[in-house]
Amino acid sequence: MSAARTVTAEGCAELLGDLRRAAPLVQCVTNAVVTNFTANVLLALGAAPAMVDIPGEAAQFAPVASGVLVNLGTPTESQRAAMLEAAEASLIAGTPWVLDPVAVGFLSVRTATAQRLVTFRPTIIRGNASEIIALAGSGAGGRGVDSLDEPAAALDAARLLGSRHGSVVAVSGAVDAVVAPEGAVVRVANGSAMLTRVTGGGCALGAVMAAFASLTPDALLAATAATAAYTLAAERAASTAAGPGTFAPHFLDALAAITPADVVQGLNLPGGD
Amino acid sequence: MSAARTVTAEGCAELLGDLRRAAPLVQCVTNAVVTNFTANVLLALGAAPAMVDIPGEAAQFAPVASGVLVNLGTPTESQRAAMLEAAEASLIAGTPWVLDPVAVGFLSVRTATAQRLVTFRPTIIRGNASEIIALAGSGAGGRGVDSLDEPAAALDAARLLGSRHGSVVAVSGAVDAVVAPEGAVVRVANGSAMLTRVTGGGCALGAVMAAFASLTPDALLAATAATAAYTLAAERAASTAAGPGTFAPHFLDALAAITPADVVQGLNLPGGD
Amino acid sequence: MSAARTVTAEGCAELLGDLRRAAPLVQCVTNAVVTNFTANVLLALGAAPAMVDIPGEAAQFAPVASGVLVNLGTPTESQRAAMLEAAEASLIAGTPWVLDPVAVGFLSVRTATAQRLVTFRPTIIRGNASEIIALAGSGAGGRGVDSLDEPAAALDAARLLGSRHGSVVAVSGAVDAVVAPEGAVVRVANGSAMLTRVTGGGCALGAVMAAFASLTPDALLAATAATAAYTLAAERAASTAAGPGTFAPHFLDALAAITPADVVQGLNLPGGD
Repeated sequence: MSAARTVTAEGCAELLGDLRRAAPLVQCVTNAVVTNFTANVLLALGAAPAMVDIPGEAAQFAPVASGVLVNLGTPTESQRAAMLEAAEASLIAGTPWVLDPVAVGFLSVRTATAQRLVTFRPTIIRGNASEIIALAGSGAGGRGVDSLDEPAAALDAARLLGSRHGSVVAVSGAVDAVVAPEGAVVRVANGSAMLTRVTGGGCALGAVMAAFASLTPDALLAATAATAAYTLAAERAASTAAGPGTFAPHFLDALAAITPADVVQGLNLPGGD
Repeated sequence: MSAARTVTAEGCAELLGDLRRAAPLVQCVTNAVVTNFTANVLLALGAAPAMVDIPGEAAQFAPVASGVLVNLGTPTESQRAAMLEAAEASLIAGTPWVLDPVAVGFLSVRTATAQRLVTFRPTIIRGNASEIIALAGSGAGGRGVDSLDEPAAALDAARLLGSRHGSVVAVSGAVDAVVAPEGAVVRVANGSAMLTRVTGGGCALGAVMAAFASLTPDALLAATAATAAYTLAAERAASTAAGPGTFAPHFLDALAAITPADVVQGLNLPGGD
Repeated sequence: MSAARTVTAEGCAELLGDLRRAAPLVQCVTNAVVTNFTANVLLALGAAPAMVDIPGEAAQFAPVASGVLVNLGTPTESQRAAMLEAAEASLIAGTPWVLDPVAVGFLSVRTATAQRLVTFRPTIIRGNASEIIALAGSGAGGRGVDSLDEPAAALDAARLLGSRHGSVVAVSGAVDAVVAPEGAVVRVANGSAMLTRVTGGGCALGAVMAAFASLTPDALLAATAATAAYTLAAERAASTAAGPGTFAPHFLDALAAITPADVVQGLNLPGGD
């Protein structure tokens, strides 16, 4: 499909250069487990984090933020209110925003919140296959941030979700799939299994997608470029780390060091369908 | 005593192999300070974390979790409700669960919660000497996660607590003591003082105990095997780290690398009494 | 001015030695993003953290703590109540306390809380130029923890704040400025831009200031000595780190290793005005 064909390594590289120049400010309403790692990922890459996640301030900040992340990992009552505020304010203000429906499906409180959040038309929805299937209304969901379903099986769900809410849907897996609202698919075949051995490996990518989405109205390109920089940095870090513990600081170093030229050279986009 | 004699390095090693095959899913209701480190410890070792800690979901998840950790480090009102939910649901469903009564004694809110939690018969209670003494109803408690009392002085308190609630009680210290409900004591003389220079050094061990407790009905063996893998990894990390900062990532690397053979070779069980 | 002239590298070095001997216990009511890093900074340096931040316990702990940090980074309703408790209890008990008014100005909820907190006469107020200007009642505030204003422009605001509340005011920047309530200024020209690439680089300094403030009634010396040890450790870490990811563990190692002699040798106090 044509939308997918327009996403190239060169386009992703250019957007990384834009990010370094713009230093977008990303508001994160995210879970307690990964908030530190997420902020450090944004800082390392060249963006700026703002973890503004309380009611009253979440709606105030979203209109001035470059992009917004809403992540359902540990959704306290206070955070759920802030999430809804931030999503609504983003929609009204035109701030691009990313929804990460962590562990929806089996867990009832976050699932109900996710179903409300999605009506505020997220720019990008990012999750693993189980989460995307559950959010689309089929399947039983995963067990936490693990996925029991293959990304391929989630493409139909992604297309359904995307067309329903006008969202790009990014499905993480060994090969990541980024699905346009019209159904086009871009695949990114980079990355490292080490990202699954560090908590927040997926969650922080959502924040990076919010940073990239602030740079272009082409959310398919933004989600792909974010995945590109992120997974290429992971590859580099995995090649020098002695295990999952040293992987994390090496990954942050790699995010700080990655250049647009590295993206052109290393990105593997095996083509959509 | 016979219960303690049955705990051997070989048994601990075998259980580590079991953990790697089973990849138990550990629900953690734990404090904000250490939630990231705790999740990374579980992932590094080969288990899977699920930080499900809100009311409504905590009770929903405990029956499907392999094991549950309840840690009182930063007990907000929401978390306290989730802790009670998770503990009760664990008892009903037969999910093994670990109570870590961080800083109970002087601090009144958490102490009241701990006294209610313990009635749900934790599989393992893990703390330092001051916390175990305070929870048993004697002593004044520690100052935060420090312990002002020696592990030896806590053995009577541990036996009292264990017999009252049917729990194994693990008392951390320079030599760790694991006490069976019937009073038998296993001592583990491994570890590194570096674990006290990293926040969560004790708290994350509670999560590891919950992972091991999911693999066997022998909670004395589970608590000892968890302590074994954890303290041996700490020894290895301390030998290569340049300070407490680099110790943390090295420790995670060591948790990922440690093998059952390492446990057989390195574990120092000086014998109970 | 005379107050500033009494602050010397030798005085800062001596206070670092005192900290190592006293191991002050620092209560932190701080934000979810940096709570882990803050606790590890305190532990690495030789102090002890106690993240006691819930209503009911915050007031109970402040009188027995050596020092208290109140940081407004992610101020939930529960934390806001705990902050006010801790500040009031500190004032009554005479426990030195530090206020870090993260991102006050534009964000209304925390700004209202900060205005109440400051009436409890913080020993030290620590922030970037935008935050100090906003708290003093001028300027529009920053965007999160970034500062849009230069430290020099904040000196008037710092003097206003300090004289109004009897506080030492520390303004972070490329050159840090520490301002006495009477208006004297000490400048510290050490540090590394890497501290701005790691989340909590400023926030954890507030906790270190609380630790130092417990050792002397001279808050100007305490804030300067904290800045000295912190920024010198950052310089050392930056010289060995490969990027912001490895900087963080190297920084903790450097905090553990820094000696009073290092402070005497490395500290650059270019003089006040």
